[in-house]
Amino acid sequence: MNHDIITMDHGSGGGATSRLIEELLVPAFHNPQLSALGDGALLELSGPLVFSTDSFVIDPVFFPGGDIGKLAVCGTVNDVAMCGGTPRYLSLGFILEEGFPLESLRRIVSSIADTAADCGVSIVTGDTKVVEKGRGDGIYINTSGIGTLTWPGLSPANLKPGDKVILSGTMGDHGTAVMLARSGLLEGGDLRSDCQPLCRLAASVLEAGGVRVLRDPTRGGVATTLNEFVDGTNLSIELEEDTLPVRPAVHSACEMLGLDPLYCANEGKMLAVVDPQQAEAALAALRSTPGGEDAAIIGTVTDRYPGKVILNTCLGGGRVLTRLTGAQLPRIC
Amino acid sequence: MNHDIITMDHGSGGGATSRLIEELLVPAFHNPQLSALGDGALLELSGPLVFSTDSFVIDPVFFPGGDIGKLAVCGTVNDVAMCGGTPRYLSLGFILEEGFPLESLRRIVSSIADTAADCGVSIVTGDTKVVEKGRGDGIYINTSGIGTLTWPGLSPANLKPGDKVILSGTMGDHGTAVMLARSGLLEGGDLRSDCQPLCRLAASVLEAGGVRVLRDPTRGGVATTLNEFVDGTNLSIELEEDTLPVRPAVHSACEMLGLDPLYCANEGKMLAVVDPQQAEAALAALRSTPGGEDAAIIGTVTDRYPGKVILNTCLGGGRVLTRLTGAQLPRIC
Repeated sequence: MNHDIITMDHGSGGGATSRLIEELLVPAFHNPQLSALGDGALLELSGPLVFSTDSFVIDPVFFPGGDIGKLAVCGTVNDVAMCGGTPRYLSLGFILEEGFPLESLRRIVSSIADTAADCGVSIVTGDTKVVEKGRGDGIYINTSGIGTLTWPGLSPANLKPGDKVILSGTMGDHGTAVMLARSGLLEGGDLRSDCQPLCRLAASVLEAGGVRVLRDPTRGGVATTLNEFVDGTNLSIELEEDTLPVRPAVHSACEMLGLDPLYCANEGKMLAVVDPQQAEAALAALRSTPGGEDAAIIGTVTDRYPGKVILNTCLGGGRVLTRLTGAQLPRIC
Repeated sequence: MNHDIITMDHGSGGGATSRLIEELLVPAFHNPQLSALGDGALLELSGPLVFSTDSFVIDPVFFPGGDIGKLAVCGTVNDVAMCGGTPRYLSLGFILEEGFPLESLRRIVSSIADTAADCGVSIVTGDTKVVEKGRGDGIYINTSGIGTLTWPGLSPANLKPGDKVILSGTMGDHGTAVMLARSGLLEGGDLRSDCQPLCRLAASVLEAGGVRVLRDPTRGGVATTLNEFVDGTNLSIELEEDTLPVRPAVHSACEMLGLDPLYCANEGKMLAVVDPQQAEAALAALRSTPGGEDAAIIGTVTDRYPGKVILNTCLGGGRVLTRLTGAQLPRIC
């Protein structure tokens, strides 16, 4: 057996599986629930909970600003946070391709452990499967997360005309960084994924008050997420193009790649729709929290274009932003 | 776009993803949490919980006695049940390969819905990713499950000399059925996977009382699971070969394939270690529950061979059963 790569034996349920779990995974995530190594973890929790799941198939596995491990923790922690939950526990499922370097797995596991610690969540239960070479792509990860519901009642159904739409920072950093890394054009560039946990940003804006709904605009980007808010309702969302925060490097990369930052995936940004009376306070709360320095009010809920998202452009026109229709950025998360 | 197969667009997070979710998944699993289509599900639960996860990469996806969908529900429901939990909620994550037939996905979704209903669990949150042709193998599924802890305190640490080891039915049905289906030799055979939920069997034996620990012997089989019980302890488990329940067809298949039923995967069987005073009552409880008709007392906890599992053979000898060491049956679940 080659000890430097994943072999089919690591997925057998036998000795190699046990060694992988006991020598790599349990020490990295050490906590009493995981160490018990039963079929599941016992959790002391009560009250209403938030439960979310995400699988991660990003290509490449390592990218500027993060890796699939950091992404897998942030993705699910952020989904729990967007529901008003305080993330507490994660499960972790690996689907490894035969031949995947153990050294890469170690780096990813370390990244998972660091990010989980940063978010205050514990990895309490897991599973590892191995598929033959050519039946996977290195590593796929699923995380499922449980949080306690700290801020109930968030929903797109709360939206009212006049509400302000706040974006917690710049758009398109993740999508462009991954696309450029994939095309091999990133050398020397300063693009980095925004992959980060949103639990602290979510808590800061929710404590400020007046929040109708939170959502992280990942696949499909800001335009697709805002469409999900107003789809089938009598409300519209109007964005002001000159307020949209986009880094110059992302702007250039989007032009080069033929992408629109409004449809690019983000992995550390949050949309908050907020009562107009409390929008400035919410904005200030975000800007004073690490990772929210570039937060901006980017639009308003109106009733002028029922069910639609409109971009009021710098030139004075209006453009309908539909949902993403094709696979602009495959395997971005 | 070919409407009969999965395309990269189905994983984009845009319109095709939404249609897949709203037209196929939400109607199949209809419940209020899933219909809300937020980033996560809100659950009203309290008290100590059990949390478990499993990814499923079985090949082939459809096999005699089940399919990857039924397996994905049973696998996680059973892990929750083995911890003394009453399964309540499941998450569902798909990793689909571009080109996978939509008709196959529909069959699998229907199977998931039927099995979940049978177990009394709701699919409350999900995720769908698509990878390029050649980077997956049709469909991989992750399920994570939450249950309420109904019977606390189950643990291999409870084992005492004299305890009886009960197996809830025949060994090796799943492993041999899948291997034969894979090799194309199954035509006309009567081998079927034992894939089934164990929640009712677990409840029946736990209500009977005296249970030290439960575990379902999946990958690695009965021999590997029993090794997990006594590994690093002063206890041993001695099995009596003439009591081991094995179907004649499984016995023949194992001989043909060079497999040992003790190491073959099961997907609807349970090992229960029970106080000797209550073993007969536990056995009777299992035998009177559907799916437990072939339950048998197969061995005893002793202190004669610390840390080892011993098979006392029909010929009067003793054979040490180690953990599974290689990948006897790759991608069996």
